[in-house]
Amino acid sequence: MVNHTRRLNLTFRALADPTRRDLLSSLMRGEASVSRLAAPHRMSLPAVMKHLRVLRRAGLVRQRKVGRLQRCALRAAPLRDAEQWIARYRLFWEAQLDSLDHFLTGSHAPASAQARQPKEIVQWPKSKRRPRSR
Amino acid sequence: MVNHTRRLNLTFRALADPTRRDLLSSLMRGEASVSRLAAPHRMSLPAVMKHLRVLRRAGLVRQRKVGRLQRCALRAAPLRDAEQWIARYRLFWEAQLDSLDHFLTGSHAPASAQARQPKEIVQWPKSKRRPRSR
Repeated sequence: MVNHTRRLNLTFRALADPTRRDLLSSLMRGEASVSRLAAPHRMSLPAVMKHLRVLRRAGLVRQRKVGRLQRCALRAAPLRDAEQWIARYRLFWEAQLDSLDHFLTGSHAPASAQARQPKEIVQWPKSKRRPRSR
Repeated sequence: MVNHTRRLNLTFRALADPTRRDLLSSLMRGEASVSRLAAPHRMSLPAVMKHLRVLRRAGLVRQRKVGRLQRCALRAAPLRDAEQWIARYRLFWEAQLDSLDHFLTGSHAPASAQARQPKEIVQWPKSKRRPRSR
């Protein structure tokens, strides 16, 4: 349990930075050297290496030496637990977005959604309004 | 795009702490006062309020005054984007966990998984080994 909690901490922390998310996206295309991964980013190589270290600690990247190059590869397995943790909230976000939908289209929210998220439509801050993509 | 990136940063940062994840889990049972939310945690009320502030900034908790109490409610909508971001990696973690499965059961990994995650079995650190729940 402690390990599972720690793994989730490390995974979510690793994902909280846009550069680290970009690095993971790049690795979806396959293994890459550190310098190639760093190329699109407007930051120093040591800064990128620091981000890679956070990803390695979270078990999301494996780094190995091939000749004189450091090659990185994606390790997606820890993301499964993160996805499972978040998915428990699906019913709640569906109810919330349904209510917003009904509000924007002028119809009444379904009873189930109203029961789950009381008064949500009135309280929803304007800046957070967004169309629901379906 | 910038807003979407910022929202993801805030969401994942909010989820990176076990106390904040516990607070969200508590709110699955419905609205609760700040003091009631704080009760199971071994920390001061201000410390819990600080965590709630991070959750509010991420749009995951709404707080409102009811009489003399501060009531908190779950706002799960931002979790949808986080889940969608992570879900793009599903194929990768399935391939990785399949390979591990085949290794542990002594059979050969399927060609597709091998192609996606070369040499992964050999490199997988012992501490990360775990049975795949199905």
